[in-house]
Parts: sequence; C-alpha cells; structure tokens
Amino acid sequence: MGWETERKFLVKDLSFKKHTKGILIRQGYLSVNGDATVRVRVAGNRAYLTIKGKSEGISQPEFEYEIPVTDACEMLDNMCIKPVIEKYRYKIEYKGFVWEIDEFLKENEGLIVAEIELENENQDFPLPDFIGQEVTFDFRYRNSYLAIHPYKTWKL
Amino acid sequence: MGWETERKFLVKDLSFKKHTKGILIRQGYLSVNGDATVRVRVAGNRAYLTIKGKSEGISQPEFEYEIPVTDACEMLDNMCIKPVIEKYRYKIEYKGFVWEIDEFLKENEGLIVAEIELENENQDFPLPDFIGQEVTFDFRYRNSYLAIHPYKTWKL
Repeated sequence: MGWETERKFLVKDLSFKKHTKGILIRQGYLSVNGDATVRVRVAGNRAYLTIKGKSEGISQPEFEYEIPVTDACEMLDNMCIKPVIEKYRYKIEYKGFVWEIDEFLKENEGLIVAEIELENENQDFPLPDFIGQEVTFDFRYRNSYLAIHPYKTWKL
Repeated sequence: MGWETERKFLVKDLSFKKHTKGILIRQGYLSVNGDATVRVRVAGNRAYLTIKGKSEGISQPEFEYEIPVTDACEMLDNMCIKPVIEKYRYKIEYKGFVWEIDEFLKENEGLIVAEIELENENQDFPLPDFIGQEVTFDFRYRNSYLAIHPYKTWKL
C-alpha cells in the first residue's frame, strides 16, 4: 500500500497545453460508498484497478494493480457507475515539481483541474501561472463525486 | 473475464471431513451494492481481489486478480465491511465432480454449504450423501449477504 498526498487546484487558462500532449483516460467506479472507492481506469494502452481508502487530511491510502485492458473495458461498460469519466491528462514539470492536469470531457466538459503530489502535507512548492483557486478540500472535485454528479449538472 | 456457473446446497452432516483437510479463508467486501461486488480474499498463503457482476440465472461474470497477502490483510482490516467472513474450505471429488464445502466460523458459525461449478446450467451431476437442500436461488446464502447479515442474526 502507498499513501497519496495531493493538493488540487482549478486551472485558469490553457497555456499549459503549449508544453505537453495529453493522453486519454476513461475511468469509472465500481464503488464509491463506505470506507473504500474502487476505480477502473484505462490510460492510453494500459489499465488499472485502484482501491482508495478514507482520507486523513490531504492524504489517502491507495492500492493499485495493473489489469488487462480488455477486462477494464468490460467493467467500464457493464459494471461501473454511469456516466464513465473521460478526460485528457497532461503532465507538466515546473521547477522540479510534476503537475497532472485533467481536462474533462463529455458530461464534465468545462472542468480543468491540476494536482500536485507531495512528499508530506507541509511541503512548499511554486505555483505555475495557470494555477487558480485551490480546491483540495472541496469534495465535489473528487472524480468519485463527478461520477455521480457530473460537472454539467452543478448549479454554480 | 470468466463466467461462473454454480449450484449451492446445504450440508447435512460432517461425513465429508473424513476425506479432506480444510484451508482457512478470510474474506471481506469493499462493495456489495450496485452492479458489482468487490471481494478481498486471503486463502492460505495467497490473496485475491475478485469482481463479480450481476447474475444471469445461476451464472455470474467474474474477474479475479492475485494480489499481495499484505495488501489483502490491510484491506480486510481497514476497508472491508465488518464482520469479515472466516470459514474453512474443503474440496472433495465425487464421481468426477469437485465440490467446495464452506464451514463458516465466528458470526456465521453453524452454516455449512457446498458448491459445485458446472460447465453450463443444464449439466447433470450426482449428489453425495452429505448434500441437503438446494439453496442456489436463495440470496441469503451469498457470502456478500452474510457479510452484512451474519448467519447467527438470522431468524429461522
């Protein structure tokens, strides 16, 4: 098991796209209740099953296993909560830190968020220009929430 | 993905124990809702993550992946629905067919069921003497039901 410590921000503009090319991710959830979420993800030509436990602050326990892409596609089509999330993921390095930027598609179009993985909750890091408001603690921006309440249905 | 086609019976007596030694299984569920159950199992010194889809008749789609025992134990202790199911599993061959017999422990003590895996729903098979009433279609005997409604709480 690993622990993920992440902070999450809205993205103000598309300037990040100049420096990187995205890969298409399709992901869905077998479960978002109780003490664990179970995620199925196809990213490019690989697939993963990921179990995440309850958050403690901004950290979360996580187990991840690679699985056959054909299995993942069957689970996404037949077993996961609908709609399945589709997004482009971009990776950008900025002053020694890696940012993962998700540009959501379809039912979540219009939403772009950036995440940075940290070594601990108190680690400092520099903010690129395209980074906007922090939403680390806003549960609506969790993918497991978006799977049930797509962004286009939000009343902002 | 595989499909499992199984029939399930109560066990009338312990005569099956003469011919076999059981292994201890601990298993729990990360999810029992929606269109999939997600099971974590430690059987002897191996562990598995299993995703089962909705039944069609007595058949059920199933994906199974071996995972590290340490991961499975952490999930059983911290993420699965309580109580975790414990049982001894015995395997017996009878006239060319393999029976799996589960003798439940702790919160499910007193319950013993036998399952036979078939190639198709119409396959005939001989019944050993220890086999009692069929419960294939009784959802209470599913392990995912027992995880939430242990046998000792049933009002029979």
